[in-house]
Amino acid sequence: MTAPQTSWIASANDGQTHFPLQNLPYGVFSTKGQSPRVGVAIGDQVLDLAALDEAGLLPAAAKGAFAAVNLNRFIALGKPVWSETRKRLTALLSGEDAALRDNAALRDKALVPMSAATLHLPVEIPGYTDFYSSKEHATNVGRMFRDPDNALLPNWLEIPIGYNGRASSVVVSGTPLHRPNGQIKLPNEARPVFSPCRKLDFELEMGFIVGKESALGEPISTADAPAHMFGMVLLNDWSARDIQQWEYVPLGPFNSKGFGTSISPWVVTMEALEPFRRDNPEQSPQPLPYLQQQDKNAYDIALEVALQPQGAAAPSTICRTNFKAMYWTMAQQLAHHTVSGCNVRVGDLMGSGTISGNTPDSYGSLLEMTRNGAEPVTLADGSRRGFLEDGDDVIMTGFCQGEGYRVGFGSVSGKILPAR
Amino acid sequence: MTAPQTSWIASANDGQTHFPLQNLPYGVFSTKGQSPRVGVAIGDQVLDLAALDEAGLLPAAAKGAFAAVNLNRFIALGKPVWSETRKRLTALLSGEDAALRDNAALRDKALVPMSAATLHLPVEIPGYTDFYSSKEHATNVGRMFRDPDNALLPNWLEIPIGYNGRASSVVVSGTPLHRPNGQIKLPNEARPVFSPCRKLDFELEMGFIVGKESALGEPISTADAPAHMFGMVLLNDWSARDIQQWEYVPLGPFNSKGFGTSISPWVVTMEALEPFRRDNPEQSPQPLPYLQQQDKNAYDIALEVALQPQGAAAPSTICRTNFKAMYWTMAQQLAHHTVSGCNVRVGDLMGSGTISGNTPDSYGSLLEMTRNGAEPVTLADGSRRGFLEDGDDVIMTGFCQGEGYRVGFGSVSGKILPAR
Repeated sequence: MTAPQTSWIASANDGQTHFPLQNLPYGVFSTKGQSPRVGVAIGDQVLDLAALDEAGLLPAAAKGAFAAVNLNRFIALGKPVWSETRKRLTALLSGEDAALRDNAALRDKALVPMSAATLHLPVEIPGYTDFYSSKEHATNVGRMFRDPDNALLPNWLEIPIGYNGRASSVVVSGTPLHRPNGQIKLPNEARPVFSPCRKLDFELEMGFIVGKESALGEPISTADAPAHMFGMVLLNDWSARDIQQWEYVPLGPFNSKGFGTSISPWVVTMEALEPFRRDNPEQSPQPLPYLQQQDKNAYDIALEVALQPQGAAAPSTICRTNFKAMYWTMAQQLAHHTVSGCNVRVGDLMGSGTISGNTPDSYGSLLEMTRNGAEPVTLADGSRRGFLEDGDDVIMTGFCQGEGYRVGFGSVSGKILPAR
Repeated sequence: MTAPQTSWIASANDGQTHFPLQNLPYGVFSTKGQSPRVGVAIGDQVLDLAALDEAGLLPAAAKGAFAAVNLNRFIALGKPVWSETRKRLTALLSGEDAALRDNAALRDKALVPMSAATLHLPVEIPGYTDFYSSKEHATNVGRMFRDPDNALLPNWLEIPIGYNGRASSVVVSGTPLHRPNGQIKLPNEARPVFSPCRKLDFELEMGFIVGKESALGEPISTADAPAHMFGMVLLNDWSARDIQQWEYVPLGPFNSKGFGTSISPWVVTMEALEPFRRDNPEQSPQPLPYLQQQDKNAYDIALEVALQPQGAAAPSTICRTNFKAMYWTMAQQLAHHTVSGCNVRVGDLMGSGTISGNTPDSYGSLLEMTRNGAEPVTLADGSRRGFLEDGDDVIMTGFCQGEGYRVGFGSVSGKILPAR
């Protein structure tokens, strides 16, 4: 049986929208005077799942899970409930089941124009881990921060390197962030200075949300890993390069990253991404057995970064790349994360690491594109950027191109406010 | 007014107990067939605060906060409520207020022998950060893992170095942990092997629990930092040294630490620790202004580590040291953590880093004591340890010595199970 392709909501069918019937990403939204609740994006509308649930149109197993300020309760119900809910929503929004389409009062109540909705952080994140899985990115950074001739560290081809990030400062798209202050070591000074960051950067990443917990002491295999994933988001891992360079040896980045991480408001489910699975990248040497994988765990997701200076008429696209080029897959990341016995929890966010391609216009950070600020990029309004300036808005977008439709992530954006 | 010194619960007055009237640490406990709730340790008893609250004997402002599976709800009520509750408990347990002492039915209900109580993780931990604040420890480790002649990295005297740990695997004392598996790089092999850890170690630490959140973008000053601290625990930062050495460059320790962190079940409040504040250690160079402090932020806490092999008659003490020797104070750690704008949340756990003194018998890890395994320590039963063996139980204790009483932390222990 082929799933229906179009919706009676016209804006879902134009071939360009990120939110056609094939997508149905989950988020948390509110409207004026109402408390946050779970919704699904469809065309230019948000479908209020709490309202649908109240009307008895959603699976009984999900009863009460949508009148919630985050997706965690729904996610914790497990994969069969995710699938059943997706099937119900597909039926309701295609019109195969007319219960919503033909009920004007319910439509009025349950469909909210996206322009009238405030989007919130979709998930309460118990743990945030950030990986470092693009070979191009690791090579570019190693070249600049360490040894140009041995840019890739010896462990990089063996380990899907990751580190623990700061979950408290993960914010939803649209949240402005102050330029961080911190310690910076200037080349000719004996001691560091305390200063606003002078090398503020973004990192284009994606993240997956853990959908099923694991127990302490029980590793997740690469084969089981997909069963532990609920969905994906766009992620901007804001980075203060000068603070990072001074602080990161020996325990890793801390204040250079902890001031904020932005994610997109819509969580695109793994089920919606299923048609976009691709062959895994070749890995040489062959990884250790616990990292080997049989499934196709790469995903074809086209990504872009744009930068819009304060007052500029439009954003300038400065990076185009694709998620499928990542060396280590999400299944390998999760298998590695848990192989020691470390447990994961529902809602955990796992960042991919910066997604860089082969050429400067596909690099996922200004650090790489501008060679640490030495070769600024020129924007549409003629201004140049080595690193971010106050007032800059960074906008990341991404989508999977289907036949006549796109499964998209919308965008994650964030504006830089002056340091305090 | 001097606070009362003795309790009508005789076991609280012997001068040796960790839990006299002057302490009153908070924890979460359960008894057979009953759900977890908040209690206070007093002598060899646990006082059930949910029962006292039901009886109307606790402050109205804390109503309902103790029938909870963790302390977070109580902690979030804020410092005035902590103080008021402490005053009430002091009055009730000294007998200054006879309402509990003279009510046999209530005593029966609210006092549980500690031997009959199961202790749980006291706090839901939204974020776990681990610092690295002992100069002796950083020097010892630098000497072994990096350059013996430049053991202390240049940033160490400027930054209270810290990194994000894994909160999901923080467990309460008594939880056994499996020896982790992971990647190990042997000196004469081209590629790493996958193996059970061969250099499993403990790290003697303390941690403080954040009691008051801060907003994203708003730093906490060293002067305000104490107002954000609820209390302290003992912490064992289990470490897989061989996994750590291979993985930690450039993003820091990950699988070598994430398989488990143990904390003591009783949270000793900052109010109980107040008499044990001491002058801060001398710092040279003088830290940058945001790290300077006026208050006395060091604490005199005597600490011990003991190791008991499987089947051994008794534990052998292998380390004696003191928390007051730490170079960076908790106030400086919190000021540094938030100076970038990073926010903290109620329940966050901030580990001190390994607490090492000047001499081998005061080093807080086997790595340091045995010089990376080369000079094993000898235990009471004649067995020797370079690193931990399966079946080893590691027991850490700590207390503040008052005049005729001790404000103690009880212990944090954990046994090593074989690798899976």
